[in-house]
Amino acid sequence: MNGASHAFDVAGLAGRLTSGEPLALARGISHVENETEGFEALLHAVHAKLGRARRIGITGPPGAGKSTLTAELARRYLDTGLTVGVIAVDPTSPFTGGALLGDRIRMNELATEEGIFIRSMASRGSLGGLATATREAADLMDAAGYDRVILETLGVGQSELDIAASADTTAVVLVPESGDGIQAMKAGLMEVADLFVVNKADRSGADRLEKEIRVMIAIREGNAIKDIASHHGARVDRPTEVETGDRSPPVLQTTASTGDGVDELSVALDEHFEWLEATGELASRRAERRLRRTQDVLMRLAQRDALGVWSQGSEDLGERLAANEVSPYSAARELYESWIGSLLRR
Amino acid sequence: MNGASHAFDVAGLAGRLTSGEPLALARGISHVENETEGFEALLHAVHAKLGRARRIGITGPPGAGKSTLTAELARRYLDTGLTVGVIAVDPTSPFTGGALLGDRIRMNELATEEGIFIRSMASRGSLGGLATATREAADLMDAAGYDRVILETLGVGQSELDIAASADTTAVVLVPESGDGIQAMKAGLMEVADLFVVNKADRSGADRLEKEIRVMIAIREGNAIKDIASHHGARVDRPTEVETGDRSPPVLQTTASTGDGVDELSVALDEHFEWLEATGELASRRAERRLRRTQDVLMRLAQRDALGVWSQGSEDLGERLAANEVSPYSAARELYESWIGSLLRR
Repeated sequence: MNGASHAFDVAGLAGRLTSGEPLALARGISHVENETEGFEALLHAVHAKLGRARRIGITGPPGAGKSTLTAELARRYLDTGLTVGVIAVDPTSPFTGGALLGDRIRMNELATEEGIFIRSMASRGSLGGLATATREAADLMDAAGYDRVILETLGVGQSELDIAASADTTAVVLVPESGDGIQAMKAGLMEVADLFVVNKADRSGADRLEKEIRVMIAIREGNAIKDIASHHGARVDRPTEVETGDRSPPVLQTTASTGDGVDELSVALDEHFEWLEATGELASRRAERRLRRTQDVLMRLAQRDALGVWSQGSEDLGERLAANEVSPYSAARELYESWIGSLLRR
Repeated sequence: MNGASHAFDVAGLAGRLTSGEPLALARGISHVENETEGFEALLHAVHAKLGRARRIGITGPPGAGKSTLTAELARRYLDTGLTVGVIAVDPTSPFTGGALLGDRIRMNELATEEGIFIRSMASRGSLGGLATATREAADLMDAAGYDRVILETLGVGQSELDIAASADTTAVVLVPESGDGIQAMKAGLMEVADLFVVNKADRSGADRLEKEIRVMIAIREGNAIKDIASHHGARVDRPTEVETGDRSPPVLQTTASTGDGVDELSVALDEHFEWLEATGELASRRAERRLRRTQDVLMRLAQRDALGVWSQGSEDLGERLAANEVSPYSAARELYESWIGSLLRR
């Protein structure tokens, strides 16, 4: 794949990127985002460098305080000498633009620190979709040597959830105000959570929400009766930290705005990662991710060629479509078959 | 396309569906959802019947009361003798399952009425994606003769927004509680709104939210100075109902739980549709949608074939991927080229 000539110097950029040049990383992510010709060769070139970063997904409903939590977590990593990459795909996040002034100032301060690289990703209808591009950007951060890569996404919308779920450890952030934890769970958050964070824990209802989450976890694990009982009074025990096989997601309380509980969150994230390593779960999750990525890339290759057919499609067909003389289904079939035909003739 | 033999009797189902048999419609939507072999032939077969239904998108953040509004609107249509199809893709909607008991009872009552067809769509990682499948289900409802097709989706997440935006008229529902209208706008809601609904208007803050929305509309239309002034006291005039060229989205207040304002919403939706028809906008939007659908179908055809290669891919390659001996990029390229090669040899 490296032999071909590309729209940019793939080997040169890969070298600068993996030696940790922030500018090279920024440029690489832009190539991924824009699908600049050669971006897949770049990802191939850095592939051997992957696997060092711990990837952390932070997800939850709008207003849960995900970005403040992300900033606080990043700050702690920086303080202990770790480097951090942050990718924000949440349109309401201060990282991406939807911020109150105070949040934005906090982010800007963080962004100027040594050892942190912040990037927001926008959905621009790319072929592979936002989810694949975001995972590829995370790969580049990993290859660039960042110790932690935090993926902040909204926990609503299928592709947004998919992104969070592609991390090694996914934290689902809820707040007492969002009131009904059960509603949040319906949206698929239960399935992606390696741990739960009850944020804004200084407000009333935090304990009740924590209990609700624990009950839902228990129900999911089939211990329904015991735990419904404990919902009505008895204390629900914290799950033990390391188990064989499945692991019950811990539930933590934080107040990101004051930093309360963020140290504990950082510890819980490390513990989950150590559990992943100890059980072999990390290796199997990452192998599974490579398989799925291959499939995504394969489909993107096919789509790109098919789209090439589209852009070279006859004006006549476009007019017949506009005039509704032909159905999209017969038109697409016609284009597809003419593409296959052109392959056969080449 | 109709000559081939399919997994089901395409012509028979198309005939029963277009003659209005609810069971045939239900089965057709299932074929679309599952991508049963022959589903595209079905969509092709009913294509000539399309265009009768008015498609209405209802979108907004979780908790905005979209489903109650949808139910109230559907009730009014039924009362005036119109038939209604409802497609819900919102995981927190009572139509799809995430409901409080009261809401669910309301929905069940509605569902048993004559002239209404309710369907929820789940994202199950289909090739074309949720957005395309949902639009195709709406096509089948249109072909089955429903006068109104309401698409209820969450206004967060790219594909969810895309679905709402594919309607003839898209209503964005906000509530005073969600507080910051600006946050909602950041998520892309501004771009898809043909009209705005301030729901739960009996709560405080409804007038303020309405004003905020009007200011944002004005800013978007470049009348920033005049309207920022009116934000500080002066009344902002309602846009005139029919304009040439662009149309300023009306802002309405409703209280879906009591039905207040829903008649007015129904009138505003009709007015928007009449504007679409009068200006020729309807014809050009629908022609544009046919072009985009063709592109989606073309890409799905290519993806499906590529995925066929994947499932026949060598075990050896799978093992090398799992062992991380090959990058997803070179593996995908290898599979893709072997597919092209197999086409050339066939």
